[in-house]
Amino acid sequence: MTVTSGALRSRTDLCTRIENELSGLIEKRASSAATYGPHFSRLWDLAGQNVLGGKLVRPLLLMETYDALQQTGSSESGKRGTAISIAAAIELLHYAFLLHDDVIDGDLVRRGHPNLIGSLLAEAGELPRADGGLHWAQTGGILMGDMLLAGTHQAFARADLPHALRLRLLDLLEHTINETVAGEQLDVGLGDGIVAPELETILMMCGYKTATYTFELPLRAAAALAGAGFTVESALAAAGRHLGLAFQLQDDLLSTFGDPGRHGKDPYSDLREGKQTAIIAHARMTSAWPGIEPFFGRPELNGAEADHVRRELSNCGAEKFVQDLIDQQMREFHELLTNPGSQVPASVRNVLLDLAGQLEGRQS
Amino acid sequence: MTVTSGALRSRTDLCTRIENELSGLIEKRASSAATYGPHFSRLWDLAGQNVLGGKLVRPLLLMETYDALQQTGSSESGKRGTAISIAAAIELLHYAFLLHDDVIDGDLVRRGHPNLIGSLLAEAGELPRADGGLHWAQTGGILMGDMLLAGTHQAFARADLPHALRLRLLDLLEHTINETVAGEQLDVGLGDGIVAPELETILMMCGYKTATYTFELPLRAAAALAGAGFTVESALAAAGRHLGLAFQLQDDLLSTFGDPGRHGKDPYSDLREGKQTAIIAHARMTSAWPGIEPFFGRPELNGAEADHVRRELSNCGAEKFVQDLIDQQMREFHELLTNPGSQVPASVRNVLLDLAGQLEGRQS
Repeated sequence: MTVTSGALRSRTDLCTRIENELSGLIEKRASSAATYGPHFSRLWDLAGQNVLGGKLVRPLLLMETYDALQQTGSSESGKRGTAISIAAAIELLHYAFLLHDDVIDGDLVRRGHPNLIGSLLAEAGELPRADGGLHWAQTGGILMGDMLLAGTHQAFARADLPHALRLRLLDLLEHTINETVAGEQLDVGLGDGIVAPELETILMMCGYKTATYTFELPLRAAAALAGAGFTVESALAAAGRHLGLAFQLQDDLLSTFGDPGRHGKDPYSDLREGKQTAIIAHARMTSAWPGIEPFFGRPELNGAEADHVRRELSNCGAEKFVQDLIDQQMREFHELLTNPGSQVPASVRNVLLDLAGQLEGRQS
Repeated sequence: MTVTSGALRSRTDLCTRIENELSGLIEKRASSAATYGPHFSRLWDLAGQNVLGGKLVRPLLLMETYDALQQTGSSESGKRGTAISIAAAIELLHYAFLLHDDVIDGDLVRRGHPNLIGSLLAEAGELPRADGGLHWAQTGGILMGDMLLAGTHQAFARADLPHALRLRLLDLLEHTINETVAGEQLDVGLGDGIVAPELETILMMCGYKTATYTFELPLRAAAALAGAGFTVESALAAAGRHLGLAFQLQDDLLSTFGDPGRHGKDPYSDLREGKQTAIIAHARMTSAWPGIEPFFGRPELNGAEADHVRRELSNCGAEKFVQDLIDQQMREFHELLTNPGSQVPASVRNVLLDLAGQLEGRQS
């Protein structure tokens, strides 16, 4: 799929509207935060910079799907402003999850730049206790995540909608948060050795932790707001889960085998951290594992060792295995969208195919 | 003030209703959590045990104030079930704050028993990395806090109320969370040496961190739900802030000078941690400080040294200074309640005087 110049223009307009909505949400809070002094208001400044610097994948997916469903005429109009506010709230939720994830993982950097925690740490300067700066910075991450989570709920709760529809969206938000938190807990449990690293568990974790809030939530919210029927909503949700799982698996492949010059991450961090991915779960079941295991999860892994591990992971079939899993998810995704029984309108199908095209072609 | 047996019976009934509401909220979530495996559902089991073991100070304050306002006939009836659900939601909020506070402070114990984090750590057993158990347990604390914060908002958002009143309660919740988070951040900033430990800052922090959500929120919510006027609501909120500050200052006095056999806490923990309280802020301005400072914030402080510090803190006038602050807050509290301009009905005044009597007499 290519994006036509008209679609590009309309995406730019949409980005501007979503950014304006997000700016409004953040500025309102940043200005009342100033009452409580510079440290509290610094949290909002940093959060604002981070939230507004994002690619807006989730709100764009919601709005493009919503607009496409509106075109089909099967839905009420006049709720676009509300849809924008829900789309912006989902971006706040994304950032709340990222922040708590960064606290949990001890991360100070995201995509090559200091995250909120890294910025607070850099600004803390010399303190009485050596670990005081990190403690202060991670506290900021926990507290700001709480405020963004609260902000998400406030937007859903205040949405200008019939009460029944607001309840429907609140159900969706509750389900999403439960599933994402369950996924995050599984991920940490895998890393800490609490949960056995079985392939099935890892795939379940990927779906819960990312696919639900990144794909299923925006798609279901768009369907609910546009008044689409249950069949369409269910088909979109299922398609979103397949796309989300493919996206997460591709992320693992890129982190391990991709070109770090393009994706900008530490090329060996997954291996050094001992991240339990589908790649590793497959490798563990092959005869190559005894040659990989001594290097896996070693913080001091050097470049030559990491290259050896990558070759072994590729030679033992783990790279191909995960690529096949991605292909299978994408086949099911396409099947769901094109099956006439799914009743997904062509305009909506195009939004999702376009997104899938962007994700498939990415190098980062 | 003594509590009559009728009032006691009605408090017992109220506790039962609030506990039933909380059980319902938790059981519903615990049963859907089971879908995601034993670790996720364990979070809900532990949270349920902790939430239901509390003294319900906040929901009782809300409901007793609400009931007393209803008696005055100035308000609509029929919303008592909704008031119960808001009261229960405030208890969830309290527990969400406690959990994130425990993560931030690295606490594993609360009131002599393992908290949720301590329980998860004890259950983690032997793990590959030595710090894996604590990481797993604190992750559980962050994630469970997130779910309880979400649960609080869900209850407010779903409250069966006219939309304008729901918005009013949502405003109140937003204000409360901002102020509590600002207070928590100040508290951590004081501990980490980011914020200068001035008396004014410490008093502000106490008000924000505890008084707002423990006293002002339940009182304002009760007034809003009972349809009380602005004058009454404002007087109750101001009285609640004074009571809350007195309560927090009394907590500091008890921790430092109280009988550990009765309050059950480590009697030297505030001194060992170097907690910046109003006691310390006063002592710092006296000639006794050079004799106290070498011992303040020393984790290895022994009993004899701590007793020496306590004597010094008392002799330099810091104990009396804080007791005077408490008395002053209590005078303003009484003045607000009894001033005819405040328009606080006698029945409501009695609820607050009764609560103040319980707090004044406490040893823990």
